[in-house]
Amino acid sequence: MSDHSISAPSPRQTGYLLTPGPITTTLSVKQAMLTDWGSWDNDFNLLTASIRQQLLALAHAEAEFSCVLLQGSGTYAVEATLATLVPRSGKLLILMNGAYGQRMAKICDYLGRDYVSLDMGDYLPPEPAEVARLLAADPAISHVAVVHCETSSGILNPVEAIAKVVKTAGRSLIIDSMSGFGALPVDARSLPFDALISSANKCLEGVPGFAFSLIRTGVLQQCAGNAHSLSLDLFDQWQYMERTGQWRYTPPTHTVAALAQALQEHTAEGGVAGRLARYRQNRDVMLAGMRQLGFRTLLEDDWLSPIIVTFFCPPPPFDFKAFYAALKQRGFIIYPGKLTAVDSFRIGCIGQVAAAQMQQLVSAVAEACQELGLSLPVPLPAHLTSSTVAQA
Amino acid sequence: MSDHSISAPSPRQTGYLLTPGPITTTLSVKQAMLTDWGSWDNDFNLLTASIRQQLLALAHAEAEFSCVLLQGSGTYAVEATLATLVPRSGKLLILMNGAYGQRMAKICDYLGRDYVSLDMGDYLPPEPAEVARLLAADPAISHVAVVHCETSSGILNPVEAIAKVVKTAGRSLIIDSMSGFGALPVDARSLPFDALISSANKCLEGVPGFAFSLIRTGVLQQCAGNAHSLSLDLFDQWQYMERTGQWRYTPPTHTVAALAQALQEHTAEGGVAGRLARYRQNRDVMLAGMRQLGFRTLLEDDWLSPIIVTFFCPPPPFDFKAFYAALKQRGFIIYPGKLTAVDSFRIGCIGQVAAAQMQQLVSAVAEACQELGLSLPVPLPAHLTSSTVAQA
Repeated sequence: MSDHSISAPSPRQTGYLLTPGPITTTLSVKQAMLTDWGSWDNDFNLLTASIRQQLLALAHAEAEFSCVLLQGSGTYAVEATLATLVPRSGKLLILMNGAYGQRMAKICDYLGRDYVSLDMGDYLPPEPAEVARLLAADPAISHVAVVHCETSSGILNPVEAIAKVVKTAGRSLIIDSMSGFGALPVDARSLPFDALISSANKCLEGVPGFAFSLIRTGVLQQCAGNAHSLSLDLFDQWQYMERTGQWRYTPPTHTVAALAQALQEHTAEGGVAGRLARYRQNRDVMLAGMRQLGFRTLLEDDWLSPIIVTFFCPPPPFDFKAFYAALKQRGFIIYPGKLTAVDSFRIGCIGQVAAAQMQQLVSAVAEACQELGLSLPVPLPAHLTSSTVAQA
Repeated sequence: MSDHSISAPSPRQTGYLLTPGPITTTLSVKQAMLTDWGSWDNDFNLLTASIRQQLLALAHAEAEFSCVLLQGSGTYAVEATLATLVPRSGKLLILMNGAYGQRMAKICDYLGRDYVSLDMGDYLPPEPAEVARLLAADPAISHVAVVHCETSSGILNPVEAIAKVVKTAGRSLIIDSMSGFGALPVDARSLPFDALISSANKCLEGVPGFAFSLIRTGVLQQCAGNAHSLSLDLFDQWQYMERTGQWRYTPPTHTVAALAQALQEHTAEGGVAGRLARYRQNRDVMLAGMRQLGFRTLLEDDWLSPIIVTFFCPPPPFDFKAFYAALKQRGFIIYPGKLTAVDSFRIGCIGQVAAAQMQQLVSAVAEACQELGLSLPVPLPAHLTSSTVAQA
């Protein structure tokens, strides 16, 4: 069991958020929002500068990268990064195995950028050798985009191997590490990429309101005029921040202050390694308990991320809505599934929860099943003939 | 003097924010951020629905309009509204007298939308008769955009008269009421417009993180496929919210909760009328004091908004940076000027401040002048030959 001390949710809290974000944050992170900051004032500029520096340091990217903060949700930062980095004459290869890869294709449709997808369906990992083959076959492809942890299934994609083949092929890699950055290790000194996108409110355990992109400075300098949108022009945002120390347009000041506090707490927990250790333990405790109750995971163990895990829904009378409500009543908010073919649900491992809460969750699941008239262990879903369906 | 009770800034607060936003908020609004909400959970959906309903009600727009919330700063909502409402074959007339009108032109450059500007320079109001003439002369103009209160100068533009000529000419009006909505009265039953844009953190006294647009539903229904950006597509955002009760992408949950509390406090203060009365008193108390100290306003009284007031900088040795720092030390954050021809600074009247704070500000200004070796009353700036330069 972890000795990481977790405070109870706030009084009005509906429960621990076991989702891919927004997640449960510490009281001290939320209390950092009790100050109003002037967005033009130097005190706030110092806060902004400190956050940008710390985010670069988390990826060991201080030497060659710039951190561009962007108001809005993570999707805004994905759209802004694709629009700013991929020139209008460029072509993107999207490695797709879930909703977030699909969303990149939708973004390219809006942008009018040429793209091709390697679509692995709901949960299969892209093969690096297949990526190499596609890049060799189509010299027009200038950029490749991959999702680090695709929370649709919870799969941890083989980013290191993919980065290697993209670099060998001389193309530019964009990593969407929205749900993983801060817990999944990233070392820009050895992992070749040009941009990495993430958000304040996932593994960094801040609150939602802005996102960011770590972009290779030499690449960013070439990106003037690429973007389709004033608000989402990361080149313009970067230039302005560098020149003035300020955000171009009103920043979510309270959210920024919350991330500054969250980054202090991240360091105090032992940085990326400390956070990953807690999340892994969260997953392992939760997995063991859920499996004992009869629940089966979509993925084999090798592909399970420490971010979020997808479980198959047991056969009727199991009903997700009733299950959700019974868990919420017990202080836990879980997440619906996103698979296209079979019914599933997801349980997140990130945010201010530790092994003790995961144990409580497992007890709550057992109670909920009994309350809903489900025998334990729950039976296998009909489509399962072996214990998992992942093909790794 | 107002009897409106204002709490002191939080301990770590740098001072009262006398700016066009972010503004000083109540402690209770900030405390509403001490809860983590699940963005997919029904409790949060209810919060979202309630805010949308209340924002419509503030403009008496429940019958024919829809409220579309959008993550990001106010500029995002302006870009999103222009992109969603003005079809690619449309043409926009921008009534420009400051930075926010100019920014709309910049947005149109990104969007590739045709536009023409009526540029009145730094602070002159657009003449409704001139607008009528321009519309009659150019049948290609489909939409007109006007800034309600242009905070570059602080001018309150003649929105009612402009709305009338735009309606008579059969065109569509988009009002940027970013800095005014919640204090400047808007009645959609009598004021003809198709969209009105504002933000959570101006006169509504929430915190920054999202903005919104009130759009005539019949118009919005025709807007599929107009937008250039997935993130900024208000048609898509609206459809998703209507269908699911949720935001399309992760909302700034804490900021949303803060606005829900801020709207309660807005009602308790007497709604738009109550808030306007306090802001007007703030302005009048501050103006009287500043004029007694020798400071001159850019605008004649008729054009002064209750939002923010622009003052000319006195001649040297007056130095804005030193003046700013001396006021900050005394607990007040003021705002730099934005005029192109002459030096100026601005003092905001909005947020959680009342007459007592404005009196303290005037005392602080007097002290700061003495500290900086400026004689009182301060002398006129060199370019002034009469007491004001506004040509109304």
